Amino acid sequence: MVKVGIVGGTGYTGVELLRLLAQHPQAQVAVITSRSEAGLRVDEMYPNLRGHYPDLCFSVPDVATLGACDVVFFATPHGVAHALANELLAAGTKVIDLSADFRLQDAEEWGKWYGQPHGAPDLLPEAVYGLPEVNREAIKQARLIAVPGCYPTAAQLGFIPLLEAGLADTSRLIADCKSGVSGAGRGASVGSLFSEAGESMKAYGVKGHRHLPEICQGLRRAAGSEVGLTFVPHLTPMIRGIHATLYATVADRSVDLQALFEQRYASEPFVDVMPAGSHPETRSVRGANVCRIAVHRPQDGDLVVVLSVIDNLVKGASGQAVQNMNILFGLDERLGLAHAAMLP
Amino acid sequence: MVKVGIVGGTGYTGVELLRLLAQHPQAQVAVITSRSEAGLRVDEMYPNLRGHYPDLCFSVPDVATLGACDVVFFATPHGVAHALANELLAAGTKVIDLSADFRLQDAEEWGKWYGQPHGAPDLLPEAVYGLPEVNREAIKQARLIAVPGCYPTAAQLGFIPLLEAGLADTSRLIADCKSGVSGAGRGASVGSLFSEAGESMKAYGVKGHRHLPEICQGLRRAAGSEVGLTFVPHLTPMIRGIHATLYATVADRSVDLQALFEQRYASEPFVDVMPAGSHPETRSVRGANVCRIAVHRPQDGDLVVVLSVIDNLVKGASGQAVQNMNILFGLDERLGLAHAAMLP
Amino acid sequence: MVKVGIVGGTGYTGVELLRLLAQHPQAQVAVITSRSEAGLRVDEMYPNLRGHYPDLCFSVPDVATLGACDVVFFATPHGVAHALANELLAAGTKVIDLSADFRLQDAEEWGKWYGQPHGAPDLLPEAVYGLPEVNREAIKQARLIAVPGCYPTAAQLGFIPLLEAGLADTSRLIADCKSGVSGAGRGASVGSLFSEAGESMKAYGVKGHRHLPEICQGLRRAAGSEVGLTFVPHLTPMIRGIHATLYATVADRSVDLQALFEQRYASEPFVDVMPAGSHPETRSVRGANVCRIAVHRPQDGDLVVVLSVIDNLVKGASGQAVQNMNILFGLDERLGLAHAAMLP
Amino acid sequence: MVKVGIVGGTGYTGVELLRLLAQHPQAQVAVITSRSEAGLRVDEMYPNLRGHYPDLCFSVPDVATLGACDVVFFATPHGVAHALANELLAAGTKVIDLSADFRLQDAEEWGKWYGQPHGAPDLLPEAVYGLPEVNREAIKQARLIAVPGCYPTAAQLGFIPLLEAGLADTSRLIADCKSGVSGAGRGASVGSLFSEAGESMKAYGVKGHRHLPEICQGLRRAAGSEVGLTFVPHLTPMIRGIHATLYATVADRSVDLQALFEQRYASEPFVDVMPAGSHPETRSVRGANVCRIAVHRPQDGDLVVVLSVIDNLVKGASGQAVQNMNILFGLDERLGLAHAAMLP
Repeated sequence: MVKVGIVGGTGYTGVELLRLLAQHPQAQVAVITSRSEAGLRVDEMYPNLRGHYPDLCFSVPDVATLGACDVVFFATPHGVAHALANELLAAGTKVIDLSADFRLQDAEEWGKWYGQPHGAPDLLPEAVYGLPEVNREAIKQARLIAVPGCYPTAAQLGFIPLLEAGLADTSRLIADCKSGVSGAGRGASVGSLFSEAGESMKAYGVKGHRHLPEICQGLRRAAGSEVGLTFVPHLTPMIRGIHATLYATVADRSVDLQALFEQRYASEPFVDVMPAGSHPETRSVRGANVCRIAVHRPQDGDLVVVLSVIDNLVKGASGQAVQNMNILFGLDERLGLAHAAMLP
Repeated sequence: MVKVGIVGGTGYTGVELLRLLAQHPQAQVAVITSRSEAGLRVDEMYPNLRGHYPDLCFSVPDVATLGACDVVFFATPHGVAHALANELLAAGTKVIDLSADFRLQDAEEWGKWYGQPHGAPDLLPEAVYGLPEVNREAIKQARLIAVPGCYPTAAQLGFIPLLEAGLADTSRLIADCKSGVSGAGRGASVGSLFSEAGESMKAYGVKGHRHLPEICQGLRRAAGSEVGLTFVPHLTPMIRGIHATLYATVADRSVDLQALFEQRYASEPFVDVMPAGSHPETRSVRGANVCRIAVHRPQDGDLVVVLSVIDNLVKGASGQAVQNMNILFGLDERLGLAHAAMLP
Repeated sequence: MVKVGIVGGTGYTGVELLRLLAQHPQAQVAVITSRSEAGLRVDEMYPNLRGHYPDLCFSVPDVATLGACDVVFFATPHGVAHALANELLAAGTKVIDLSADFRLQDAEEWGKWYGQPHGAPDLLPEAVYGLPEVNREAIKQARLIAVPGCYPTAAQLGFIPLLEAGLADTSRLIADCKSGVSGAGRGASVGSLFSEAGESMKAYGVKGHRHLPEICQGLRRAAGSEVGLTFVPHLTPMIRGIHATLYATVADRSVDLQALFEQRYASEPFVDVMPAGSHPETRSVRGANVCRIAVHRPQDGDLVVVLSVIDNLVKGASGQAVQNMNILFGLDERLGLAHAAMLP
Repeated sequence: MVKVGIVGGTGYTGVELLRLLAQHPQAQVAVITSRSEAGLRVDEMYPNLRGHYPDLCFSVPDVATLGACDVVFFATPHGVAHALANELLAAGTKVIDLSADFRLQDAEEWGKWYGQPHGAPDLLPEAVYGLPEVNREAIKQARLIAVPGCYPTAAQLGFIPLLEAGLADTSRLIADCKSGVSGAGRGASVGSLFSEAGESMKAYGVKGHRHLPEICQGLRRAAGSEVGLTFVPHLTPMIRGIHATLYATVADRSVDLQALFEQRYASEPFVDVMPAGSHPETRSVRGANVCRIAVHRPQDGDLVVVLSVIDNLVKGASGQAVQNMNILFGLDERLGLAHAAMLP
């Protein structure tokens, strides 16, 4: 039984961790922290959990208590994991960070995008980027795992087969991504109000979004070279889901893209390459730790279109975090994550 | 291992049965029928099920095949179970009917509301109304179970404590109920289009709705007398969920309603009486087989307001059907139904 | 040409005033205030207004400037109009207050519900409750108009024909009301987030809501006696719209309710009594200054059900405010309000 | 006063024509046809129109009656205008076709995409493509106008400034477009159900969509050369709105794109070039005949991103049709179209 701590459990990735871990046969949540809600029972804040955590209350973060856990998840804004990771690792506790703190390997670049100096640059060399489809072996040995962002998960899983095979023109990649509103978190902001985000669609961050350097870092690794990426995120009037529509120039029209994708992910439990001609819907992964992908070559031209969908809170955050935990602790990778998506 | 057949699996209650049974450790779906989709793999129609039923295809309904199952669920329009139930029961197969065919005990009343003669009145004496919170013992012995409708489940569970205790004026009960659009099924109809049902609310069937006699039948049983009920259903722009707002006159202001409700459901695994002052949200039961209830007495007057929420496809249909199956086959009642609701 | 000032124009009732007044041939917005956004062009905040108010900027509220207007609308939280009304009236400016400040005629009751002392009790005797269907003559002479709340508008227009005719049992009225999320305003609050309010329904304020005394005050006036009202508001996943489902006991079954309603509103430009058997949808009034009503007597019982729908931002706020302005200034009551609702 | 006929008025473009023409001071709807609903009053089908067309009923299409109109709008599926246009033109009636019948100038290409032979190829030479921003002079002289499709309007208005200026690499244009569900029409189809299209996003028609040749035809005209376009439409869970995200390679980084766009549309009443750095929202044009555009050059690279939003039922259909009518009859182009969009 893995003893689990969660730092910052009041947001959507926190409650989603609780939902997934409630049905995990080999993990037990021992502590969950929140400064603002300390003392409150988790099911008073999240009534969907009533009956599942009858005694669990939010507590003030405390290194001694957290350090007694086998693993601590950070479901926090950026900066928090920087401050606590070293102490927890020293206590022998594994750290799985759902925030952006250890995703970028270059501390300076991190500082540029997040507007503050990196708080734990000494840990970067050992931080493992927790995309199991790329880094499974490293995850097994890790002490500190950076769970990928939601857009980066959808975009990388869609581009990787083309890049690893050296097929795409890496100088002109495009990721036109659409996200549900829960991606903006549970903080009170006017832009995320029902009456603002409902019945409307818009792009945002076209000038530059924090997930851009993270996606580029992953694509560089896959391509073995620099990449040029245009990333346009959009806010979509739905709660959960990311739909990445990816464009890459693949001049060689003789390659069997369907076979390439199927082979790349043949042994992956959580990547589903759909039949040729498919259009995956985000609802087909709602609540499930799955990325569904379809690859198209419209009008048999040289521009390939990859459609990649995930649930931003599951494969894009908390589910992927649990998947990392399973790998890290030598458990069956599917434990607690085997349920089907909810449709409709 | 319970061998399961499903008749009419292409609708929302069908896919929800498949989703729930996919994670049920003691049940296996052996056959699922659909005349219109015979030959199609279920996960071609419902991609959320990819990986869960790799070999399961819709087949033409056939009594021999269905009769080889331990239990057959009917997820069909009314009339279908009438035609097949007798043969299946004769084959020793249990029948759990999610349609309205055996919900009303009076064949004539059934005919009046459904516009056609009852097709199997001989079976009515043994049909058990599958509301476990009322009929658990009878369910254990049943061959034929009528799973309650969605509105009737929410309304009965909310009213029953008051009626069984003889507290309410039974002549003037009101059920103002709000349903998500999935309650209207997966049939193509203009009224259920996104552009028609979205961003709008309306009442419907104020003159008379088919669930009215079913609710009244259940309330009569609880009250031990005739009841006068006004039932106003509303279509709400959400996919899943029923919110029943129930009004009853309870002249005796000395009774502790909170305690009454808590005691009535103390041992029920799937009814959650929330703390005093609560306002249950339908999302707190999304995807879960739970009914959450709160009871209020506004301004300390004699009108009591009960708020009762369910997921119409789970506790209001397929989840309750699985709960009945568990009881019927002597399994732990929570098997396959223990997961938390999905929020947000 | 009526010279218009708006205090507190950044919220939803403010932008809706601007939308409606942009097409009003006899009104011109001269000044709009907002402390927090002073200096910002209104169409920078509300791009739907681009091209309509090319030079209009938010300014700091200033009595001299506002006092130079013919009329000032308050689209503010409660308390603000209390502070400014006296000075504006002294300057000869009419005041149309969309907030709750002058809706209740009893200052003490106001203080109880709003948690602070009434700030201008001296003005209460002359404040006119701006429901034109009841108070048109008084509105014509008014200096200070309190625009009714959204729930109160829908509920009163639905109940009034029964009460004025002395038909209903006034001791047991029920208003089960469903509101879109814009009713909660544009303030950043967790409960109004898309991911919180979407795909879910809940009741709120069952214990007591600020609109309860306002509705009761209006119903008392119509009935000529005390009334007992149970009011249960619900949050519905749509942006605009209120659906009031009203229940009243009308023992006399011989009365022609349809005729009663049609006659009561025969000369009202903005109340539409729909044909017998109708179920008005909130979308049928989206963006329009209309209240549509249908009256039912289910199962020919003694409980009458009235369905009343409005757009909470139009007939429930800004449209009704403009209607009041038209009456007050002797204009055609329909000016600027004659457009059809937007469907779908 | 322009005497208007509408053929096929029961769909969304039909009701939107009625909404817009109700507030048009120089047009009067004399006849509206529908075979299936003949005899029904239009406001029985569309209660938002109650009070606006008290006497207007759907009638069986009849050339004599339609031929007595000054102009006939076709709001029909493809093929219908083919059959009737010749007779109406012979009667001296102008034809404004909202369907696809006369959008493609090549009858053979039309036949390929629409799966049937073109029904009136003789009329193609005189059919004018009704995009006023390109064809205003031709529209003034036209007898037969083909109103552009919704996607083509948004895409062309966004690309045209770049193409007319010869700045873009025309061989690799991308239009990633997101549409609300009303674009699929009011026909009963499973894919457009609230429970299917809600809370989800998907691409569709990646292999080839009927609007592709129409967009290409318009872009060729603007560029004066062949174009290579990849067009990926997506279904978005909102009722109205199209968001086109357009990608074009513009190697010359010295050009002032903002100025280019502003100059191109300086005198256009219905194209709004937003300030640099803007992200237009579809709700900012809801109900209004406006296309709002922003142009970006992310990371100062050679890939330009244009964001273009319209209401698919207004500037993408019925509003643009009225705009064409105004031009055709020498009226002020803004008549009936000057109202602001509705937000929220």
